[in-house]
Formats: sequence, structure tokens, C-alpha cells
Amino acid sequence: MSRPGNKRPEYHKINRDLFVLTYGALVAQLCKDYEKDEDVNNYLDKMGYGIGIRLIEDFLARSYVKKCHSYSEITDLIAQVAFKMYLGITPSVTRNESSRNEFSLILDKNPLVEFVEELPAGRSSLCYCNLLCGVIRGALEMVHLTADVTFLQDRLKGDKVTEIGITFLKKLEEKKYRRKK
Amino acid sequence: MSRPGNKRPEYHKINRDLFVLTYGALVAQLCKDYEKDEDVNNYLDKMGYGIGIRLIEDFLARSYVKKCHSYSEITDLIAQVAFKMYLGITPSVTRNESSRNEFSLILDKNPLVEFVEELPAGRSSLCYCNLLCGVIRGALEMVHLTADVTFLQDRLKGDKVTEIGITFLKKLEEKKYRRKK
Repeated sequence: MSRPGNKRPEYHKINRDLFVLTYGALVAQLCKDYEKDEDVNNYLDKMGYGIGIRLIEDFLARSYVKKCHSYSEITDLIAQVAFKMYLGITPSVTRNESSRNEFSLILDKNPLVEFVEELPAGRSSLCYCNLLCGVIRGALEMVHLTADVTFLQDRLKGDKVTEIGITFLKKLEEKKYRRKK
Repeated sequence: MSRPGNKRPEYHKINRDLFVLTYGALVAQLCKDYEKDEDVNNYLDKMGYGIGIRLIEDFLARSYVKKCHSYSEITDLIAQVAFKMYLGITPSVTRNESSRNEFSLILDKNPLVEFVEELPAGRSSLCYCNLLCGVIRGALEMVHLTADVTFLQDRLKGDKVTEIGITFLKKLEEKKYRRKK
């Protein structure tokens, strides 16, 4: 499976409900397949990673992103452009004041759980949306940025907000995350 | 899992690529889980059915659909409103001239296979997009229309076009498929 030539200048917008429900079916299938929540979480992350490394090219082509100069700019871009484009929401960004490379995306709304009221029975450690972490990780890696991306809080688990933590692991070198022309 | 109150008048538009790639991950997972193509196809249809019976309510709320008077109108609605809304394409509709209840949706473009060049090895009977048949079937059932929905042709299998056949099985009774107020 590989992508045919990039001949789609238009912006392919769809209503997100079919996606959200299909994602639910995917998580349900993985819960059938893997007994341990940890395995489901890892698998979602791995799938997301595979999606992220494919998605980044189109994202860069569609978003007309210019060069970023800091981790902060990159995180803002993920929140304001990528989340808006693919999930229709704009998380707020917070930064760990004691660190230059740790950021959080705070999701007031999370469309991926729109049809989900609670975690499935016996699945209290499930990171339902873990695919997103993998997508972010994979996409960042394709622009030569290594990062840890994990859910730090999750409303589905009773937390007040849903928070995705991004820790950039490599020092940013200017040339590396510039978009290739 | 059930849906909280319908408080979303806005139209949640997103770029479809994340959905398309997530769908690919779902199909790949099912191919891992089930050896026989037929089982994968059945499972995709079943998942789609579950999605269709949930999606229809929002679809009716968002599409401002008025009462349909014929199978033909219903099929046009699926092609022109539903496909446009959820996949960003508008299939053309053909009708079997020798029958009043058999229609086809002809997909010139199929975004669900945009990242797929060919069927996975050893999966020549896979109906990659079979989820769509289930979605249509489930959604129709919720408005009291029973239908057989299957892929009749598929470009991924070497056919010239991709064609979804819809055969309405019950005679249409006027009151039954009117939108509930």
C-alpha cells in the first residue's frame, strides 16, 4: 500500500461522525483481541504511529506550514492546525514551566469519545484515544523530531480534563524540522 | 455506550485523511484476526450496521431531509447527501430497468481506498469497503426500510468501476420512512 501522486489540491472535508464511530469499532475490536489494557494501548499507539508517518506529508502540503522556530511553535501548530484539521477541535496548550521541552494539549472537548459515556467494563486502564498519541509521535518523527506522547489525564477515567503530554526528546536543530520543498 | 443529548447544531467538518487511514488500520486488524475473506467481509458489514443505526439520527438532524416518496428518491439522498456528508463524494445512481427496487451507486472515486493500491496479498475476495454496505443497511433499517446492500463491482478487484448495489426488500409504506419529529 502506498500513496499515488499528490494530485489533490482541494481540502477534503467530511462530517466527522462516521470517523468517530469507526474509531469506536476499531477500539472495540482491539479490546476483543487483547485481554490486557496495556496491550490495547500499545497497539493503538502503534497503529497511530503508522498513520502519523503517512499523514504528515499531506498535512504539510495542506497546511502551508512555515518553518517553526521552537518546540512551543510546533506544539501550537499541532493544536491549532492539525487538531482543527483532523478532529475539528483546537486544544489549548500549556507548557511545563520547569522544562523547555514538555508541553500539554488540553482537550476541553474530545470528539473521539462523543459516542462513549464510559470505558468498557473491566477496561479501567484503557487509553481509549491512544491512537492520537501514536499519530502525533509518528508525524513528528517524520520531521525528525523524537517525542514521548502520552495521555496524562483523561475525562473517561474521571479526570477533570483530557490532557495529552508531549515531551520532545531531541534538541531541536533548525534544519531538521523545516519542511522539505 | 450511548449518545448524550443532541446539542450539536453545527456541522462538524474535518479533513477525511485521518479517517481513511484509521479505516485502513481497522481492515488490517480484521485481516489479522480472520483468516477467511468472507469472515472479514461479514465482520465489516456487521460493524457498519452498528454504525449505521447510530449515525442515522444525526444524519436526519443535520441533513434536513424531507419525506421521500420513492426508492429512487431515497437512493438519490444516500448518494447526494449522505455520501457527500461523510465521505466527500457524490456517487452516481443507476436503476435496474427491469426492477423497481434495485439500484446501484457508482463510485468514480472512492476515498476509502485512497491510500490503497491493491488488496493485501492472498486477500482476493476481500470487500475492503464492506463497512459502507453495513452502514447503509443499518441506517435504512432505522427508517424501517429493509435492504440488501453489497458490492457488485470493485476497482480494487480489477473492475472498471466500484458499484454498490442496493435492493430494497420491503414494499415502501409511506408512513414508515418519514422522519420522526
